[in-house]
Amino acid sequence: MALIVHKYGGTSMGSPERIRNVAKRVAKWARAGHQMVVVPSAMSGETNRLLGLAKELAPERAMQSYHRELDMLAATGEQASSALLAIALQSEGMQAVSYAGWQVPIRTDSSYTKARIESIDDQRVRADLNAGKVVIVTGFQGIDSEGNITTLGRGGSDTSAVAVAAAMKAAECLIYTDVDGVYTTDPRVVPEARRLQTVSFEEMLEMASLGSKVLQIRSVEFAGKYKVPMRVLSSFTPWDIDINEEAKSGTLITFEEDEKMEQAVVSGIAFNRDEAKISVLGVPDKPGIAYQILGAVADANIEVDVIIQNVSKDGKTDFSFTVNRNDYARTVELLKEKVLPELGAQEVAGDTKICKVSIVGIGMRSHVGVASKMFRTLSEEGINIQMISTSEIKTSVVIDEKYMELAVRSLHKAFELDQPAA
Amino acid sequence: MALIVHKYGGTSMGSPERIRNVAKRVAKWARAGHQMVVVPSAMSGETNRLLGLAKELAPERAMQSYHRELDMLAATGEQASSALLAIALQSEGMQAVSYAGWQVPIRTDSSYTKARIESIDDQRVRADLNAGKVVIVTGFQGIDSEGNITTLGRGGSDTSAVAVAAAMKAAECLIYTDVDGVYTTDPRVVPEARRLQTVSFEEMLEMASLGSKVLQIRSVEFAGKYKVPMRVLSSFTPWDIDINEEAKSGTLITFEEDEKMEQAVVSGIAFNRDEAKISVLGVPDKPGIAYQILGAVADANIEVDVIIQNVSKDGKTDFSFTVNRNDYARTVELLKEKVLPELGAQEVAGDTKICKVSIVGIGMRSHVGVASKMFRTLSEEGINIQMISTSEIKTSVVIDEKYMELAVRSLHKAFELDQPAA
Repeated sequence: MALIVHKYGGTSMGSPERIRNVAKRVAKWARAGHQMVVVPSAMSGETNRLLGLAKELAPERAMQSYHRELDMLAATGEQASSALLAIALQSEGMQAVSYAGWQVPIRTDSSYTKARIESIDDQRVRADLNAGKVVIVTGFQGIDSEGNITTLGRGGSDTSAVAVAAAMKAAECLIYTDVDGVYTTDPRVVPEARRLQTVSFEEMLEMASLGSKVLQIRSVEFAGKYKVPMRVLSSFTPWDIDINEEAKSGTLITFEEDEKMEQAVVSGIAFNRDEAKISVLGVPDKPGIAYQILGAVADANIEVDVIIQNVSKDGKTDFSFTVNRNDYARTVELLKEKVLPELGAQEVAGDTKICKVSIVGIGMRSHVGVASKMFRTLSEEGINIQMISTSEIKTSVVIDEKYMELAVRSLHKAFELDQPAA
Repeated sequence: MALIVHKYGGTSMGSPERIRNVAKRVAKWARAGHQMVVVPSAMSGETNRLLGLAKELAPERAMQSYHRELDMLAATGEQASSALLAIALQSEGMQAVSYAGWQVPIRTDSSYTKARIESIDDQRVRADLNAGKVVIVTGFQGIDSEGNITTLGRGGSDTSAVAVAAAMKAAECLIYTDVDGVYTTDPRVVPEARRLQTVSFEEMLEMASLGSKVLQIRSVEFAGKYKVPMRVLSSFTPWDIDINEEAKSGTLITFEEDEKMEQAVVSGIAFNRDEAKISVLGVPDKPGIAYQILGAVADANIEVDVIIQNVSKDGKTDFSFTVNRNDYARTVELLKEKVLPELGAQEVAGDTKICKVSIVGIGMRSHVGVASKMFRTLSEEGINIQMISTSEIKTSVVIDEKYMELAVRSLHKAFELDQPAA
């Protein structure tokens, strides 16, 4: 049959009972004749428990200087859950073996706590598959060229799974999680939200980067780069449902645009309330100011999302951007102390009570008027738009946080996302 | 100064607060100019927690068939505590790095859950020491020739520490634990028990194998083989006590017999109530019966301790031995079903309510009458001796469990162990 990669998140691995269910599900796939590679996350709560111990030993704001040891520590969570899954599979009568990242090996660069995968050696895994074993590969971790353990950052197990699937040329990478697919928007906000049967890789990329938490963005990038067919589906269906039914469930991330007969203009609505807005007002409008402001921010290792520079008036301009809310205070302090004096700007203003709402759709490329329909819909609800940012297949607006649900609901309706695709 | 190895047990590493104390103590030694290698156990309770999860996934009596994955699982405990100790040391301003067994590497055979160390590469550790770093090496684990993680079995961290000390040619291996040294016997049974300032390697070996739980027996064997000076001392003294005082505390395990001016005849009394006695009665006295009985037991992977064969009477003999109490039922069943029919023996009898009490002393070699003094003492207390076993430096008796404390106390007094050594 085929070589299949399954990935199970922390919730799916959250207890011995759930691990046993994962084992039964994997055994079903293996018994159907598939070669199976499984990438589990740490049991839910375990990574936080380990990092909590570290925080008791070192000041939290200095944690970055302990990064090598934090990776040594955090990597144990996935190693333990992988071994437990191997035991559960063996106890189901399957041959199974687990490998830590360094045993495969999964080679990464040396950027501790956010390492990037450089290569995966498939020899050992392939030999085991050919010997009829289920192979479990720890997610989230690898080894650098000096033999140090590295981790890929939060959610890195998705990336591990896709990378393993790419290296093994797997037929499909199934991401089992606690939701049953990718929705037009968060069903907790819009009860009418619909599960998408397919979503294009580019749309998924925008949705992941815009705050939809179903998939980690790097895993989607990886899937796109190596054209790994990837499916998001629920690990909470009964393990013994029909395998053909299961294989078609969830949401498939596709790479061929014409796969959908009728391309919806807008596929989904993403939102994110983890950001804060910062404006540097009255900046002298001369070359280099964007670099002066954002260079200092980047040097402090603060990630910037939306960036807006208004047209200038009287030789002065306003410069606005958004950062993660956790970085807000630090960014404002940095700007006031270091950037403002050098820049000769008037002041720094900011707002943490904002949110970003985005419409995403590959059909936006060929349809005009999508953005203006979005603006009209928000205006009809009396929602003021503070910032706008666009790309080829999405339009994002920053608005007052309190209007978030209203905005998402009215956009979901306006773009008829509650209607089944034609 | 010198290269020193510190080993800290699970209780000493039991909480972030205690790990911080270990870090402060190690930092004190490093600041005094020593090159420091530290071998920590897993945080107390962690190994049991991990194995408990495994037991929920697989039937306990079949656990041995999961041995590779159990080692994968259990090894995470030491990796986590090592990383935490590195973080604590760094937070004290020290340069520190932790290595899992495979990173050193500590090479072992492939006997999962009870692997033996074959070699230790000291290059990486030595380079770090020369660069001024404290090096933390995970206890209890290694890597086999196939790149699989192995563990050394319960208490294996002692062995790791001694092996690392041997490989690095350390000046001394300090085993920090929750007691302050090796005692003439367990102070909970005999309040007058005295701490020994020194104990010979051979005595320590007997005491470890006879049930004194201060040191793991394989670590003592290792220390003996490589002549590693080894000291048992408390991790619960204040971390900032004078380093010279600390360096002389606890109990030193010595290799030169003449180091003690006056050799005590008996150094200590060990006892063990984990055993059960089994007798095969009415065995035809012909060649090969010991092998027929114990071969079957060994094949079932059951360890046998004391073995006694009585002189025969009317062509029949009785054959007795002790096993761990946990193996008692299984051994009796095995003998009744498999061995008795083949052997033509009359019956199998047994008793789980026994204990073994032993006197240990290197001076027994040159002093006659030590064993008879032991027997007389027990007889004066009305304690019946069921089995006797002797070696060059110890005499063990098996008696009714209920007399254990009485036997230990009266022997402790008879051999004047409560008196300071002359």
